Amino acid sequence: MEFSSKLLEKAVNEMAQLPGIGKRTALRLVLHLLKQPKEQTDFLTQSLMTMREEIKFCKSCHNISDVDICEICSNENRNHQIVCIVEDVRDVMAIENTGQFRGIYHVLGGKISPIDGIGPSQLNISSLVEKVKSGTISEIIFALSSTMEGDTTNFYIYKQIKETGVVTSSIARGISVGDELEYADEITLGRSIVNRIPFENSFKSN
Amino acid sequence: MEFSSKLLEKAVNEMAQLPGIGKRTALRLVLHLLKQPKEQTDFLTQSLMTMREEIKFCKSCHNISDVDICEICSNENRNHQIVCIVEDVRDVMAIENTGQFRGIYHVLGGKISPIDGIGPSQLNISSLVEKVKSGTISEIIFALSSTMEGDTTNFYIYKQIKETGVVTSSIARGISVGDELEYADEITLGRSIVNRIPFENSFKSN
Repeated sequence: MEFSSKLLEKAVNEMAQLPGIGKRTALRLVLHLLKQPKEQTDFLTQSLMTMREEIKFCKSCHNISDVDICEICSNENRNHQIVCIVEDVRDVMAIENTGQFRGIYHVLGGKISPIDGIGPSQLNISSLVEKVKSGTISEIIFALSSTMEGDTTNFYIYKQIKETGVVTSSIARGISVGDELEYADEITLGRSIVNRIPFENSFKSN
Repeated sequence: MEFSSKLLEKAVNEMAQLPGIGKRTALRLVLHLLKQPKEQTDFLTQSLMTMREEIKFCKSCHNISDVDICEICSNENRNHQIVCIVEDVRDVMAIENTGQFRGIYHVLGGKISPIDGIGPSQLNISSLVEKVKSGTISEIIFALSSTMEGDTTNFYIYKQIKETGVVTSSIARGISVGDELEYADEITLGRSIVNRIPFENSFKSN
């Protein structure tokens, strides 16, 4: 791409560093900002900078938070003995949305992925193991996505905590509610038969 | 969406103001910035702010430029008598990429679109009409996209300059090079027959 302006080129190149944003999309976004009042660019850049500088992570569960201990961890009405292990804040938001979980979370901040150079030490694993060893937790729910990286991470954590005798579980894998059986992949359908549940449980939501 | 942090929520909301970026995509982009070193956010916000504040528009063709008169308009090797009318800087870049045009441009900055509240006065039309009336231009090439807005804009400009006797032309509409005839839409195929060209011209590129 040949740009008529170095300022434009630089802005487009920086925008195109974001994941899933190519040069063409970046140009479209930057030209949009140019057409809008200057305030829109100010608001955007200001909110990004403030967020990047001031954001905190909960000292207990490592979720993104504005305070030292997040709302969920400081809520006494939640069951602090049941800990759900998730990858990032999006998973917390998704599970919170269901209204089905009253325990607390532990946010790993990613998955073990040697190909991306992410090892166990870059994730919030040691604090989880400590928490489990301290004996205050009765059940650990593994809720990472079932990819190779997710399974590796699950297994790595499981190996370190199994001696403590804590109850471990995994979120159920199966056919999505409302999905047609014929379109489900074989592995999911296979597991949904192996891990079938008592019929009367299939209506339950909580 | 329920956010665990107001800072995060604000950043996501501002990001989601950009065209084609929904809340989920915005969250993905913002979380990416959080995972990257702080410098990446600094570079992005700095380049956007600098661009928004310092960018100039060429005083002759209204294209985005770092100087008062852009490189194309100040290039004496280009034919300043042939002016190609385009919508925005992306069209200039696309035509420049072909290497087939040696004239200069006139960037309108949009198309007449009453539904979006864009009238002729918001576009760079009057400076074009003045330029044509001054008699320094021999040919005007209309190169707006052939949508209802594009045709309206073309016709509005054409009405104002036809009395000057300047030669007007439109970029050719037809079947894309390499496309199968059977998949072309009827209007394009129809026009490509009505506006057929001498066979020996069909190999020419310049």
